[in-house]
Amino acid sequence: MPLAEFPLIYRYFSHLGGGAAVDLSVGDDCAIVRLEAGERLATSVDTMVAGVHFPEDSFPEDIGYRAVATAASDLAAMGARPLGMTVALTLPDTDELWLHAFSEGLAAAVSEYSLPLIGGDTTRGPLSISVQVLGALPMAQALLRSGARVGDEVYVSGTLGDAAGALAILQQQWRPEPDHTEYLLRRFNRPTARLDLGRELLGLATAAIDISDGLLADAAHIAAASGVRLSIEAARLPLSPALCSHQNRETIMRWALTGGDNYELCFCLPAGSTAPAGTTRVGRVEAGAGVDCDLAMDAPTGYQHFTGD
Amino acid sequence: MPLAEFPLIYRYFSHLGGGAAVDLSVGDDCAIVRLEAGERLATSVDTMVAGVHFPEDSFPEDIGYRAVATAASDLAAMGARPLGMTVALTLPDTDELWLHAFSEGLAAAVSEYSLPLIGGDTTRGPLSISVQVLGALPMAQALLRSGARVGDEVYVSGTLGDAAGALAILQQQWRPEPDHTEYLLRRFNRPTARLDLGRELLGLATAAIDISDGLLADAAHIAAASGVRLSIEAARLPLSPALCSHQNRETIMRWALTGGDNYELCFCLPAGSTAPAGTTRVGRVEAGAGVDCDLAMDAPTGYQHFTGD
Repeated sequence: MPLAEFPLIYRYFSHLGGGAAVDLSVGDDCAIVRLEAGERLATSVDTMVAGVHFPEDSFPEDIGYRAVATAASDLAAMGARPLGMTVALTLPDTDELWLHAFSEGLAAAVSEYSLPLIGGDTTRGPLSISVQVLGALPMAQALLRSGARVGDEVYVSGTLGDAAGALAILQQQWRPEPDHTEYLLRRFNRPTARLDLGRELLGLATAAIDISDGLLADAAHIAAASGVRLSIEAARLPLSPALCSHQNRETIMRWALTGGDNYELCFCLPAGSTAPAGTTRVGRVEAGAGVDCDLAMDAPTGYQHFTGD
Repeated sequence: MPLAEFPLIYRYFSHLGGGAAVDLSVGDDCAIVRLEAGERLATSVDTMVAGVHFPEDSFPEDIGYRAVATAASDLAAMGARPLGMTVALTLPDTDELWLHAFSEGLAAAVSEYSLPLIGGDTTRGPLSISVQVLGALPMAQALLRSGARVGDEVYVSGTLGDAAGALAILQQQWRPEPDHTEYLLRRFNRPTARLDLGRELLGLATAAIDISDGLLADAAHIAAASGVRLSIEAARLPLSPALCSHQNRETIMRWALTGGDNYELCFCLPAGSTAPAGTTRVGRVEAGAGVDCDLAMDAPTGYQHFTGD
C-alpha cells in the first residue's frame, strides 16, 4: 500500500497516522487496526472528483477537509466510533504547494474527527480523492435506514440548505452580505460530520441517514428501506439566518428540501422521545410509501452535484 | 455509500455482496463486517488508473479482475484472511456493455479470493478503480516487512518477470509463439494473489512483501524495514518456459529482477525451514543494508508502471 508513488507524500502525510486503535499504520502492505471486544467493523467509501463534486479552483485545504468530512458522515449515520481511514489520491502532478495545503486540510479533519490516516495510495491522473472510513459498532447495534416505524417522529440536525446556497454563490447566482457569504461557503467547504450525535442516537433512533442528496431524497431512502412514508412539514425546517437573507422564500425552501452536500443527519425517534440538543423535529412517520411534504415544489427533487461552470 | 450515481450499477454488482462475515452489505450508509474473537483488521487500498496502470484498451473483464487481485495481494503479503472489499469506480460514462464485462471480471475475483463486494461509490470522470480490501489477522500475528534476520533464507512464490514480458508484448516489442503469448498476457491481466500461501506463512516467515514493483525493489523494502541486506542469486530465480522463450538472456533476467506487476510473494524463512510448495529459495539474508545481486544489471532497478503507448 505505497503512499510513495510521489515520494513527497511522506513528508506531508506521515504524521497523520497514529491513533489508539492503530497497531500498524502507513508503511507495510496493510495497516492493522484493533476493534474492542464485542465490536464489529463499519466501513464506507466516498469519492470526490474535481469539477464534479467540487469546483476545480477550490482551495486544496478545503478539498482535503471536505473529502474526509463527507466520508466520516457515513460513520455518523451508522452511529459508529471512528477508527481510521485510508485515502486514495489521484493527482495530475506533484505540486508541492498544493500538497502542503491539501495535507493541512486533511490534518484538520483527522484531528476533528479522530480519524488517523492509516494508509493510502497515490497515483497520477485527473484530481480525485477516495476516502475509505473505518469505524466500530457494538455487535448488536447500528443506525440503519430500515427501522423507522409508523408513529415515529422525523428529526434533522443543524440547518438545511446552506450548501445549496453556497453553490449559488460559487456559481455567481447570488451575492449575500459578506458575513453570510463566509458562513455559507464554509458550510459547503467544511461540512460537519455529526459523529457525536450519531453515537448518541445509537439505541435511541429507529432509523438514520446523512443528508448528502437533499432532505427529500434521503428521507425517501429511509421510507423505502423501512416500508413507511415520511411526512415533512416545511414550516418546521431549521434554516440559518444566512440562508434566510435570500429574498425569495421559494428558493430558500427548495434549497432546504432538495439541496445536497449538507451532511446533517435525518433520523427517526419514537414519539415522545427527548431529542438530542441541536436537532429539530421536521415531520412524522406514517403508513404508506415515499416522502410527503406539505409544500408543493415545482423543482425536481433529485439533486445534482456541482458540475462545473 | 451510494453505488447508485449510475443506477445501472445495482444490476451488475448487487449480487456480489454476500459473505459469512458480512452483517450488512451494500445499501445503507456503511457496510458492517464481523471479525472473530481475537482477530484484528488488516486493510489496504490500491488505485488503478487507465493509461497508467493498464492500457486504455484492456478488456473490462481483465480490468475488474486485476484491480481486485492486486489489492488482495496486499492481504496475502500480511497473511490476512479475506473479509470483503469496497470499490470506488470512476467512469467516463455509462456504457452498459462495458459495465457488464467489468462486473464479470469483478465477480470472478470476488469468487476466487472470497472477497465480497460490500460497498462502493461510483462517480463520473476519467476511468479509475480504487479497491479497498479488508482482512482479518490473529491479534498477535502478521507478516511484516520488518522481521527478517541475518541467516534467514529468501524465497519467492511462482515465477518472476512474466508480467514484464507481457508488457513487452503489449507494447509490440516482442512476439513470442501463441501459447507463450497467451500465458504471459494472462499473468499480467489475471495476476494471482497468493492468499493461501500468505496464511500458511503466518508464524513461519520472518518477513514478507508482495512483488508489485520488481523483486529487487521490493526486497529492498524488506531490507530497509528489517535493517539487513538481502542477497539474491540470479541463477536461482524461478522463470516460466514462456519467459525463457525470449532470445536474450539478459532481457529475461532484467524482467525477472526488476519487472513489476508480478504479485508473487517474496518472504524470508529461518534457515533450514521446510518451504511451502510452489516456492523457490532465491537468496539469503546477510548483515548490511540494501539488496545485493550476483548479476550486474545495466538497467535501472526501479520499475515504471505501464504508461500508455
